[in-house]
Amino acid sequence: MPHHELVAELTAGLPSGSVLADPEVTASYRHDMASFSEAGTPAVVVLPRTVEEVQHVMRTATALRVPVVPQGARTGLSGGANATDDCIVLSTARMDRILDIDPVERIAVVEPGVVNAVLSRAVGERGLCYPPDPSSWEMCTIGGNIGTGAGGLCCVKYGVTAEYVLGLEVVLADGRLLSTGRRTAKGVAGYDLTRLFVGSEGTLGIVVKAVLALRPAPPPQLALAAEFPSTAAACAAVCSIMESGHVPSLLELMDGTTIRAVNAMANMGLPETTEALLLAAFDTPEPAADLAAVGALCSAAGATEVVPAEDAAESEMLLQARRLSLTALERLSTATMIDDVCVPRARLGDMLEGVAAVARTYDLTIGVCAHAGDGNTHPVVCFDARDPDESRRARESFDAIMALGLGLGGTITGEHGVGVLKKEWLARELGPTGTELQRGVKAVFDPLGLLNPGKLF
Amino acid sequence: MPHHELVAELTAGLPSGSVLADPEVTASYRHDMASFSEAGTPAVVVLPRTVEEVQHVMRTATALRVPVVPQGARTGLSGGANATDDCIVLSTARMDRILDIDPVERIAVVEPGVVNAVLSRAVGERGLCYPPDPSSWEMCTIGGNIGTGAGGLCCVKYGVTAEYVLGLEVVLADGRLLSTGRRTAKGVAGYDLTRLFVGSEGTLGIVVKAVLALRPAPPPQLALAAEFPSTAAACAAVCSIMESGHVPSLLELMDGTTIRAVNAMANMGLPETTEALLLAAFDTPEPAADLAAVGALCSAAGATEVVPAEDAAESEMLLQARRLSLTALERLSTATMIDDVCVPRARLGDMLEGVAAVARTYDLTIGVCAHAGDGNTHPVVCFDARDPDESRRARESFDAIMALGLGLGGTITGEHGVGVLKKEWLARELGPTGTELQRGVKAVFDPLGLLNPGKLF
Repeated sequence: MPHHELVAELTAGLPSGSVLADPEVTASYRHDMASFSEAGTPAVVVLPRTVEEVQHVMRTATALRVPVVPQGARTGLSGGANATDDCIVLSTARMDRILDIDPVERIAVVEPGVVNAVLSRAVGERGLCYPPDPSSWEMCTIGGNIGTGAGGLCCVKYGVTAEYVLGLEVVLADGRLLSTGRRTAKGVAGYDLTRLFVGSEGTLGIVVKAVLALRPAPPPQLALAAEFPSTAAACAAVCSIMESGHVPSLLELMDGTTIRAVNAMANMGLPETTEALLLAAFDTPEPAADLAAVGALCSAAGATEVVPAEDAAESEMLLQARRLSLTALERLSTATMIDDVCVPRARLGDMLEGVAAVARTYDLTIGVCAHAGDGNTHPVVCFDARDPDESRRARESFDAIMALGLGLGGTITGEHGVGVLKKEWLARELGPTGTELQRGVKAVFDPLGLLNPGKLF
Repeated sequence: MPHHELVAELTAGLPSGSVLADPEVTASYRHDMASFSEAGTPAVVVLPRTVEEVQHVMRTATALRVPVVPQGARTGLSGGANATDDCIVLSTARMDRILDIDPVERIAVVEPGVVNAVLSRAVGERGLCYPPDPSSWEMCTIGGNIGTGAGGLCCVKYGVTAEYVLGLEVVLADGRLLSTGRRTAKGVAGYDLTRLFVGSEGTLGIVVKAVLALRPAPPPQLALAAEFPSTAAACAAVCSIMESGHVPSLLELMDGTTIRAVNAMANMGLPETTEALLLAAFDTPEPAADLAAVGALCSAAGATEVVPAEDAAESEMLLQARRLSLTALERLSTATMIDDVCVPRARLGDMLEGVAAVARTYDLTIGVCAHAGDGNTHPVVCFDARDPDESRRARESFDAIMALGLGLGGTITGEHGVGVLKKEWLARELGPTGTELQRGVKAVFDPLGLLNPGKLF
């Protein structure tokens, strides 16, 4: 169908300024932040502000059989928000109101375009906390977090986005409005459709409202850094910390490649011989005691240096190295690819050793940061995108890393999602029976296959 | 099809003693512990021990088009495990092995017939904790807990069964084996089918293995009891406790009817003028300090007496009143019906007042225990089952209580499930769009409608 007809139909039900059709403008909505992920050219971008406007878009899309790609802030790392050719891009960026924050029910009710950090600060002012904290939290939206099932640094103690979504309002492919879940603390009435939408990457419906669970704000966390002569020793410390019953609010690992990249950029003064840095933090009533116990476990596992922070400012300095990791690795070449393989904690050492072997095999620089307490690794493949051979090797190393993770009993994605980047791998992880059932579920919600086609499967 | 042919087909693939066809024996598998729930007469009861045996049962059922009703310990309260006429009852009671307890991954891998208390004690010996603690925990099975999405006393801090199920193995209606989820701490690969099975009441497949998340065992909890002259005052205290950011490990409420029933049975010495008893407990590092703060909030809300326990033994004595509640209410008549309405915390007072009004309208005794911190009430309707008019009024009061809960923004079931008891009410709570989609999901997994027919919808 000609684009101008589609634009006319959309414009008929949307306020002025909500429909963008200038190709130079719409081009900027083509893709998210994933490398190596195909992206098409949208016919039109719509920016609805209300549920009714979203319903108009979906009714139009269904009537005209036009695919719809939902987008939040496009900070995703798997191409899940990438446009397909001639699609409608539906951005929820303007649906950005916090509708309610209720300290008695410990819930927030929000529109999908609310930025994670905006919500976090707003609930913080009420003494509450919305834990999920992806690295992109200053930009990414709650709708995108729900779409990908986003995680973050705090997940080792507080879990991922899925655990904070109590109920949803969703516009279906045909424009009908569905309410799922609840505002109450508990509820088991029927199948858990709420949870089905979390991590569904916009393939089942458009989330237009979410009821989120909040927690009381914890005390400020206190951190320590421990330097190890090998990743194996650091991973042994992770297992020992978790086995001993500690509940850190953060347990992160950086490998030698990452440490050296951070040192080169920011002169952090980390010894060049350190092959792994472990960062642990506690937000318990007596964090110093917890840090002392964990420090002793690190020393027993072979740490050469254990540095506990004395206060919040020192903690922030220690964590700075972790926060700079990705930027530092990005400086090593012209492009990076970030993987997201999660393995059982006990296999973390094997995973890191395997990634080092992959880097040697493909002659690439691969630095690893990991949410170590969750076994969730982010190998960052650094490559020169101008070099076709190196780019090919980068793509192949990425696949080798996923194969490695699956072989270790892990999953291809801990928190970034599947998108277009990993869809062949999803089929491998789910197997034929799982894939068939997932496709069956998709068909129930989106029989015409209009919602974010080409993602997941 | 004649029962003897079905029995012959089943027996061909199952070890001797696994197929029960004597009507006097099979009759004892007709129903769970729900009142007012229709139950049919099974053709046969099978007690498989292995995944392959479950697959044989399901293949046979599909080939012969015979419905299958899965059962755990039949402690359910909604008729979800009730037989239908001429069905196969598939009891998972003999699949009762704990396959793994792993303190590094903080997971247990279990078969569905493992009794909740057996698992809890086994993980406790390893310094770990499996939180979900339904009242029937000494009898009920993990498979049944997963089927209903069971809760318990600890949910106010630790959440419900759904939050502890990481992965499943499920035998589908046609006998195929499906793996869902993961053994890792995180994972977002595809739609969350694991969570779809939790609370699905055996209508989507037979859970044959579960990977469960564990937590480090918390310190022993310390409790207080607070006596209130009205339920309104007690409910105000609940809101004030939650609003103040406290995280109790237990926050239970008993109304005046329940208190007097417990007094009559066990001489607990509770003042007859007390109209509500609130029990709070903390398993924090400094529980006495938390209890003091909560005690002050109770006094401010109008408590006439606040009794903090000094130690674990005193705590247990205080909690005894709550544990005896149901037994005490059961003594008041020949039958009881237990409801499970969950409302927003701020509406708990309205809910209790509404239940008292329902009791007056229908001229019945209705005692209420509540997981107050979750807004989850269990009104217990006491009636003489030999009196047709009183039985009718009991059934009607039950419906009135659910209507009340929905009107207050609540759900018809916080943790007991829908079964046959509440299926008309599920349709009301979900609405036509939600119901249509749920039926669509059911059809993907069970196109012939053989799994636990007549439940949920």
